[in-house]
Formats: sequence, structure tokens, C-alpha cells
Amino acid sequence: MRVTTENRADIGLIGLAVMGQNLVLNMNDHGYTVAVYNRTVSKIDEFLNGPARGTRVVAARCLEELAAGLKPPRKIMLMVKAGKAVDEFIELLLPHLERGDLIIDGGNSHFLDTLRRTERLRDKGFLFIGTGISGGEEGARRGPSIMPGGTPEAWPLVKELFQCIAARTSEGAPCCDWVGENGAGHYVKMIHNGIEYGDMQLIAEAYQLMRDGLELNHAAMRRTFAAWNRGELESYLIEITRDIMAVPDADGRPLVEKVLDAAGQKGTGKWTGINSLDLGIPVTLITEAVYARALSALKDERVDAAKILKGPKGTFKKDTQPTVEHIRKALVASKIVSYAQGFMLMREASREYRWHLDFGNIALMWRSGCIIRSVFLERIKAAYDRNPNLANLLLDDYFKDILRTCQASWRRVVAAAVQAGIPVPAFSASLSFYDGYRSARLPANLIQAQRDYFGAHTYERVDQPRGTFFHTQWSAHLRDGNA
Amino acid sequence: MRVTTENRADIGLIGLAVMGQNLVLNMNDHGYTVAVYNRTVSKIDEFLNGPARGTRVVAARCLEELAAGLKPPRKIMLMVKAGKAVDEFIELLLPHLERGDLIIDGGNSHFLDTLRRTERLRDKGFLFIGTGISGGEEGARRGPSIMPGGTPEAWPLVKELFQCIAARTSEGAPCCDWVGENGAGHYVKMIHNGIEYGDMQLIAEAYQLMRDGLELNHAAMRRTFAAWNRGELESYLIEITRDIMAVPDADGRPLVEKVLDAAGQKGTGKWTGINSLDLGIPVTLITEAVYARALSALKDERVDAAKILKGPKGTFKKDTQPTVEHIRKALVASKIVSYAQGFMLMREASREYRWHLDFGNIALMWRSGCIIRSVFLERIKAAYDRNPNLANLLLDDYFKDILRTCQASWRRVVAAAVQAGIPVPAFSASLSFYDGYRSARLPANLIQAQRDYFGAHTYERVDQPRGTFFHTQWSAHLRDGNA
Repeated sequence: MRVTTENRADIGLIGLAVMGQNLVLNMNDHGYTVAVYNRTVSKIDEFLNGPARGTRVVAARCLEELAAGLKPPRKIMLMVKAGKAVDEFIELLLPHLERGDLIIDGGNSHFLDTLRRTERLRDKGFLFIGTGISGGEEGARRGPSIMPGGTPEAWPLVKELFQCIAARTSEGAPCCDWVGENGAGHYVKMIHNGIEYGDMQLIAEAYQLMRDGLELNHAAMRRTFAAWNRGELESYLIEITRDIMAVPDADGRPLVEKVLDAAGQKGTGKWTGINSLDLGIPVTLITEAVYARALSALKDERVDAAKILKGPKGTFKKDTQPTVEHIRKALVASKIVSYAQGFMLMREASREYRWHLDFGNIALMWRSGCIIRSVFLERIKAAYDRNPNLANLLLDDYFKDILRTCQASWRRVVAAAVQAGIPVPAFSASLSFYDGYRSARLPANLIQAQRDYFGAHTYERVDQPRGTFFHTQWSAHLRDGNA
Repeated sequence: MRVTTENRADIGLIGLAVMGQNLVLNMNDHGYTVAVYNRTVSKIDEFLNGPARGTRVVAARCLEELAAGLKPPRKIMLMVKAGKAVDEFIELLLPHLERGDLIIDGGNSHFLDTLRRTERLRDKGFLFIGTGISGGEEGARRGPSIMPGGTPEAWPLVKELFQCIAARTSEGAPCCDWVGENGAGHYVKMIHNGIEYGDMQLIAEAYQLMRDGLELNHAAMRRTFAAWNRGELESYLIEITRDIMAVPDADGRPLVEKVLDAAGQKGTGKWTGINSLDLGIPVTLITEAVYARALSALKDERVDAAKILKGPKGTFKKDTQPTVEHIRKALVASKIVSYAQGFMLMREASREYRWHLDFGNIALMWRSGCIIRSVFLERIKAAYDRNPNLANLLLDDYFKDILRTCQASWRRVVAAAVQAGIPVPAFSASLSFYDGYRSARLPANLIQAQRDYFGAHTYERVDQPRGTFFHTQWSAHLRDGNA
């Protein structure tokens, strides 16, 4: 059916790739009439005659028709490639919109682009939302995690719709709430993806420790991941890892071992690392995970280097070998550090960009629907419910206690991996961070002394008020014979 | 003396902070006549009546006078704060210059700014050089490492001057050569600074391992650093660390322990990390060093956390405690990894920005004068002399052999630190990288399987040609009962 001024739709959606299609069907399931448009117009017919057959979905052949067929204030959602395409569609849409209409960008845009677009459109009298959507195709169809930010006045226009199509927690709370102004929604989605990189790398390291270090077969690893998925690690990523272990190739052997070990990436993990460097927050684990993918991608170089660079053979020594339970605990502890770092970064970003982020709410939004969904996030929500001003997740009683009970295993696993020559960049980065964060005193005093020595950068003193700066002619002391 | 058209100077210099002053005096020492200008004009008099008294240095009261008093083609060096000030001075200078004149930016500019400026000035008919200068105040005065890039036609105009005032290796080679087009010089300086962050962090970790892990006093550490400075670690940073250990506070106790352990940073380390993420090169060690400074700066949070988060007390267990020699070897091995990563990044940047960097030459430029100067850099130069197309420093026979002999110590130190609760982010990141780089097979196959499972990202196979992509309905396998 074509959209007309008589059968006006509740919302328009542009971009009928699989995510866009699935969102439309999801909205339709919940009683909304959606008008759809796609740059390649044939895709519209394919959709209406295919997945959308028999639904309330209506087609628009051009943007003018799309705009004309929407109830005011118009709501138009872009599900197009992040970047140039978003700006182009905004420009193309504006002539057909009226003040107070709302454009929603549901792609993986960089939060600074969303910030810019929100402000630009506000200046012209339009509303804008940039929203993170996580959960992949399946999530988009059945209920994703939705993280909207933008013009605050836009939220009431789509709150009901968004919360209707979003995933729900076991208690029935929607995994969607207003994140904050301008780029806040896309920022939180970026952090979500960064944490996803971290989670995946941690699981990959656990897998290698079992496969190579302990020489477990895939049936045993499947049972292990299945058991882990019944405890504090219960999560979508552990669940699919369990499944993956069980999938055979045509020859009956585990398919995962036929998959090339060169990981791709799409940029959001990298953005998280870059932002953390910009804001000066040590998000070591996510960045190590991004680097681990980069290193994996150098497959040919690694194959060559493996012939030249020697080291232990990658299996644990029998006398110091950790158990599967030790590895599980190391994974739990490392995961806590990863989330703690992610929330540290959001805390700083909330200050820097003046977003007033609600961390408990963010944990709730990630609780279901998205790739990092887990029971664990409920614990994070609970921690922020207990103390909304919690300085750091590591300091919450619940997480502190887990770290206490996991710590000996964690150290044992990292030490054994180091001795066995198994690379554990994320496990060891998280442990180093933990030991650094709980150090009242770090060796940075030497770094400050060096900087003062060669660059006269000055230093503060432990026994003097902060903000008082000293400079020493370090080499003069030696020339004076004091040494 | 005032500069006039009769006593035209060889070069003009703008910006009489300490680096600028020292470069002027250095040029003067080598027979060049320098005309100087400073925005705060009183500084010019102070300089001429102070450090520059009795020299050939001449003063210009305004930019017009400065330009008029220079031999053509004019050469004007900016020693002003990186950023806006550089662009402002360029704009102010242009009306007084003629086509073919040369502006040189000697500050710590971002290489992308230098790239932009080079192209903009070339379009207007002017020459531009952006040059890294390292060595601090002392280096600027006695002979720094100079890394110039920009318009290639500019190099012959300043080659003699730059190589004259630069540091020299023990064989007499100047630590200055043409790096490459547009931003190449500032890029190489950025990498230099990133490596400096890495070196400093590694030394700081070695210091903490000795001070806390082995409970050595400062006299013992001084002797240790002195001994290290006579071997393969011989370098400026080890030398000043040795000196720092010997400097007493007023109460006679080591001054370094009174220095606040909250490290500052000025941005070039961070830029290196960001660039490595952008180019997808795993420069883990430098980034961990940047993060370690960021973590150190959270002093108050750490002091609070230290009361709450428990762990081992930070001294080695007697039965597994490493020796000072083990720590030295761990430092050497980690340092090799750090430089290998830095050169990996430069290799990728050289491709990406089309600079044709000469890596042996870069090592030579860093050999003397700059903060990371060391005997070690001579070995790197030799490695690239042996094989200019060396894929990775780690694969050079010399470094490969050191890694072989250091490896057991390296593993032992990291394992012991992990067990003792001493954070060693850079030591362990470098070891993880080494073990990852020499792995023909990493667990990234699981990551690719996960991405294909939840996002249909597809994967390649180890038994099929690269560039052939597969997709599996992983969960369908399970539903079909294949699991």
C-alpha cells in the first residue's frame, strides 16, 4: 500500500537494509503504522512483497511522499550507513519538514557527529535524536536495546514507541530510556561496543587457555561454557560461545577451528580507545582488545614470525597449571575491571560533555536485547542503585568481594600463561590496572623527576599542598658532590 | 644591535622562550647571524642584554623589520606554542615575505597540522618545514636531534645550518636529516615522544620492582642503574635515573620519594596512541605508558581505593623472587618490543601518508641529542642497514638473539610481579605482544565466529583462499540436533 495523507503513518523509516527492515516489522508488531523509503526503490517493493506482506507497512516512492504521509509532528528514522549518508538525507529531508518535526539517526554514528547535527537542527527549529541500537538483526526484530540522546523535547514524541519495541528485562522494564542531550545516546552505544570488544577478547583468551594451555577438546569446552552460563558469567556472549563450540564442519570437526584467526572491526571499539586517550581515562582493557584484533589481522606476519621467534610451546606446565575454575575466576575478575573502566570513562565524559548520565539506567538498558546483555549488568545496576555517586565499580561491596575471592586464581592464571607463552593481553592488562588502581603509591614520582630533570617540567611533593610546584637542578646536586 | 638591510641575517627566529633562546645561541656558536623577534618585545632586550650579550644576534622590533633584515630567500623559524599561535604568526608573516621564502615550525605541532600548513603555503608559493626538535633545553643549546619534514625544495636551504647545530653521533654523523614530505618530520618526532613515554614507564616499573619488590635502597638502585648504563641499556634516560637516585632532599633522604606520583603529560604520547588506533597497529606499550600516567594522576582515587581493595603486599616472595639481573633482562626485552612497535607504526604511516621514511636514518637521528638517545638505537640503525626492508625489528638477528636470552627472565619477572601484586602494565603488555606476534594461531577465530553468529559479519577459512567469505547459521546447527 502507498502512504497518503488519508492513511498517515506514525513514523517514517529510511533505509531498508536488514536492521531497518527488522525495526519496521518490530514496530508493526506493536501496532504502529510505518511508512518506508529506500534510496534503491526496488528494495521497497521487495520488502512490501516479502517480509512486510500482510502488514500495515506503507511505501513512499520519494521523500516528499514520505513526509506528506506522516502524522505531525513528523518522526523520520534514518537507518542508513553512518557518515556522509546521514548528512545527505538530513539535507534532502529538510525542505519537506516543518518546525518541530523530528529526525532520528539509528545508525552507528560517532557521538561528535550527533552532537553537531543536534545543534545544527535545533538552530533550524527541528528536533533530532541520535540513538544507539544494539542486538543485531535478531534484536532489531524481537526487541533491541535502544539508547537515545539528542534534543530533550524529542523524547516524549517517541518514548512510547521506543520503549514498546525495545527488549525488556525479566522484571519487565524496557531496555530503553533517555540517555542525555545531543551525542549522549551514541556515546553510550560506543561504550557498549567497546565493552563488547573487551568481553569478546576476554572470552577468546579463556578459550585459548583451555584449548592450548589445558588441551581441552571442544566438547569439554562446550560443557565448560555451558556451566559458566549458569553462574555469574551468564550472558549472551558466553551462551553463543557455548553454541559455537558445538558446531561441526562438514568433516565433523569443530567449525570454529576452520575459521581464520584474523578479526575484523568496524570502528566503535577504536573510537572508545581514542576517546579514552583524549579524556585521559585508562581504559586499558578495551584498547588492548582493539589492539589484539589488529594484531590478529597481521596473520601473514605472525605466521612468518612464528618460525623465527622462539618461546614456550603454549601448554601449561603440569605442576602449576590452573584449573578451569581458576580460568573462570580470572575471567570474572577481568570482566569486572573492564566494566569498571568503561563506567569510569562514561563518568568523565558525562562531566566533559555535560550529559548527567544515569549509570544505573545505562546498566539497565544493556540488561537485555544487546550483545553484552548479562546477569552481571543487573549487579551493576544494583551497585548504582545503592550508591548513585559510586566513585568506581571496583569499590562496590558486591564487586569488591568477587575480586577478593577471584584474585588468587586471577594471578595464578596470568602467571601461568606468562610462563607458558600464551598471550593474555586483556587478562594481564586488567590485573595490572587492578594493582595500579589499588596502589596509593605508583612509581610515577620517578617519571616526574625525569621530566623535571630533562625538561624543567616541575613537580609537586607528597609533603606539600597540591598546586605547589618545585624544580630541582638534579644534575647540579651531583656536580656539587652531594652524590 | 638592530637588524638592517645592511647587516642581513642568515635566519630569523620568532619566540624567545628557553628553547628558542638556546637554538639562537647554538646557531650563533656555529657562525650564523640570527635575527630574533618575540611577541612580548621586552623579552628581546632581556635576551640581547643577557644570554646573547656579545654575540652576533640582532634584534627586530616587528615582523616587517625581521623580514627586511634577512638574506633572501628568507628563512624564519617559529619557536612558539603549537596550535593557534603557529597559524597566527604564519598569517602575520606572509605579507612581508616573497615567493620562495621559507617558514619553519620548530614546535611540537601535530603532524596533520603540519601537513595542512605545508600544502597551504605551497599553494601560495612559499616553502614550509615542520621540524621535530628533541633534547630539551640542554639539547637545543648544545646540539639537539632535529627531524625536519615539509616542502622538499626547502631542505637544501637549511640543510647545512640544521646539520651544523644538531647533535652528532660518536662517529660524527649529524643527528638530522630530511625525514620526508609535509608532516613527516613532526610525525617522527611524535613517535620519538611516544617511545620516550614507553622508555620512561619501563624504567619506572623496573624501579618499582627493585624498590618495592626487592626492597632495595636508593644507593643500591643507583649502583644498579649505573651498571645498566654500561651495557646494552646505555642511554640518557638510564643515566639520569641513576643520577636521580642519588639526589637527597633537605633531610638527607632520597628526593625522588618526596616527588608526588602523579605524572603529567603534554599530548604527544596520547597522539601516538590515537594514531596507532587509527592506523590499526598494536602499539600496546606506548599506549599502556600513556594510560599509566593517566592512572597515576588519579592520586586521590588511588589513595582511597588502597584502603578498600586488598591484594598481595607488593614484595616478592623469597622463593620466586627475581634478581636485579632478571629485571634488567625484562627491561631490555620490553624495550625491544616497544621500539619494534614504534617502527611498525612508522612503517604503516609511511605507506598511509606516502612518506618513504628511511628507518635506519630515523634511528640515526635519535642516536644523540634527544631524550631517547642510546646505544640501542645504533643497533636499530645497523638492523636496517643490514635489511632496509626488514618486516619487523623483532626478526632482526641481533634483537631476536637478545629476546631469546632475555626471555626466561622476562617471564619470571612478570609472573613474580603478578603474584606479588606489583602493577607492571608495560612489562606485561610487551610480553603479551611478543607472545601474540609469534603466534601463527591466535584465538581470533572465536571472535570471528561470534561476530558471524550475532551480526552475520561472515568469516574467512584457514583452508580456503583469503577473500572468500563464509556465513554460518550457527544456532540452526544446534536446532537441527547436530550438537
